Amino acid sequence: MLIDGKKISDDIKREIAQTVESMLAQGKKRPHLAAVLVGHDGGSETYVAHKIKACEQCGFKSTLVRFESDVTEQQLLDTIDKLNNDNDIDGFIVQLPLPRHISEQKIIEAIDYRKDVDGFHPINVGRMSIGLPCFVSATPAGIMELLARYNISTKGARCVVLGRSNIVGKPMATLMMQKHNPGDATVTVCHSATKDIKKICAEADIVIAALGQPGFVTEDMIKPGATVIDVGTTRVPDSTRKSGFRLSGDVDFANVEPKCSWITPVPGGVGPMTIVSLMKNTLHAACHDIYPE
Amino acid sequence: MLIDGKKISDDIKREIAQTVESMLAQGKKRPHLAAVLVGHDGGSETYVAHKIKACEQCGFKSTLVRFESDVTEQQLLDTIDKLNNDNDIDGFIVQLPLPRHISEQKIIEAIDYRKDVDGFHPINVGRMSIGLPCFVSATPAGIMELLARYNISTKGARCVVLGRSNIVGKPMATLMMQKHNPGDATVTVCHSATKDIKKICAEADIVIAALGQPGFVTEDMIKPGATVIDVGTTRVPDSTRKSGFRLSGDVDFANVEPKCSWITPVPGGVGPMTIVSLMKNTLHAACHDIYPE
Repeated sequence: MLIDGKKISDDIKREIAQTVESMLAQGKKRPHLAAVLVGHDGGSETYVAHKIKACEQCGFKSTLVRFESDVTEQQLLDTIDKLNNDNDIDGFIVQLPLPRHISEQKIIEAIDYRKDVDGFHPINVGRMSIGLPCFVSATPAGIMELLARYNISTKGARCVVLGRSNIVGKPMATLMMQKHNPGDATVTVCHSATKDIKKICAEADIVIAALGQPGFVTEDMIKPGATVIDVGTTRVPDSTRKSGFRLSGDVDFANVEPKCSWITPVPGGVGPMTIVSLMKNTLHAACHDIYPE
Repeated sequence: MLIDGKKISDDIKREIAQTVESMLAQGKKRPHLAAVLVGHDGGSETYVAHKIKACEQCGFKSTLVRFESDVTEQQLLDTIDKLNNDNDIDGFIVQLPLPRHISEQKIIEAIDYRKDVDGFHPINVGRMSIGLPCFVSATPAGIMELLARYNISTKGARCVVLGRSNIVGKPMATLMMQKHNPGDATVTVCHSATKDIKKICAEADIVIAALGQPGFVTEDMIKPGATVIDVGTTRVPDSTRKSGFRLSGDVDFANVEPKCSWITPVPGGVGPMTIVSLMKNTLHAACHDIYPE
């Protein structure tokens, strides 16, 4: 059965919009997300456009700060300083990747962790690991939300996470192993050095694929009845599309789908949930319910 | 074969003492660790005494700040503030557990992360997770050091971590999966909700047991030739000892030892390495080589 990330994300955006309505009715300010976009990478342009559109749907104010790709690190740091100190801005993101002459880590650490709605700052990463309230990075948070809304049983389940990135694989593993629902799973993290990856996957009740390798997860790697979460969004050339490409997940959907009990499509699965999780984090920032004022 | 944590820790203490000698010869100040001890818990008293003795062996200055168990949270926070601002103190620890009326998390977060040689502050936890320079908590760091000094192959190895605590299980899993040597292993974290824990353990090339359940890991859970790291140190009543107790690991040592290729004893395995890792962190703090001044 399909896990409909598009539908769930639409539901959540409506819930957020209602909350914003009642905040405004109580005389509170409108939540405000800013995004910093450097250069003209196609993927980044699309992501930021989707985030701004989601802000509109949620009733948030949004601000886009654009730079050409020759912006200096210092200019970017100055911008972050301004956003940190702008009381109207509740949260902001710097869209990654950045040009090579800029240290992404330095930029991330310059963001006030109380406005770090991407959840990339070490304080938020650490608090997530310890199990303290924090901004959880958007993709893992979105996947947890899908598992919760579809009532997918995770306690004691074997969960295999494919990939150990800082923004998906590692936080995903941490969230899935926490004593919490969803969570409480027995988690194995596989990566490029893993041997027998097919065999390990085939033992899993839940497979979360975040490798960025189109079609990596094949039918023989999936236990009948398993839940498959596909985080991959690789642009694959496709001359039949107007854009010249299509998004491909890490899962061979056509052959895996008949075998598993639940599966997220690409697009329309994890992608929309990632954006809506950013919206939820922005709402938390505006309400100061993670970090009190 | 025995992994001799006692010997390795003695070697490292000698290495540290030599480094301190040359620091003093260069006119630098002597590294200085402070420990805050609340109450009279037997285990805590022993750990702190061992840490102070290790300071002497390394040529460090040490300061013990003692409070009765009725100390208020505010008194403790005031002490931390003083230690944070004392330029002679390079690093300090607050020995856990604390009495129930004091929030351990609040105390940990009050410590300046640049002096947090226990590596418990969210900034250090987050930086460790991301793979940035930081104070790594002492037990996981000590285990990584043992694996390195015994040249135990970890790349692509199946590693099972038993336990998901914030100070051992979770950081251990993160370190073992990082693209690094030691590390680069395929890590599975097991805990109280895990099903088939015996079967999962039996597939592991490396088992790291940190459950605090004496004798939990039995011979049938160990693959022939595996490496077994025992983090357990539970006090078990023993009338034949002068102290009235003995330390028991999580591993049924007598029966597991003949089957595995490497094993840490309790005591004399992970324990001394934990203390020596604290010494290494203190040396890093004194040299400001993780967080520049």
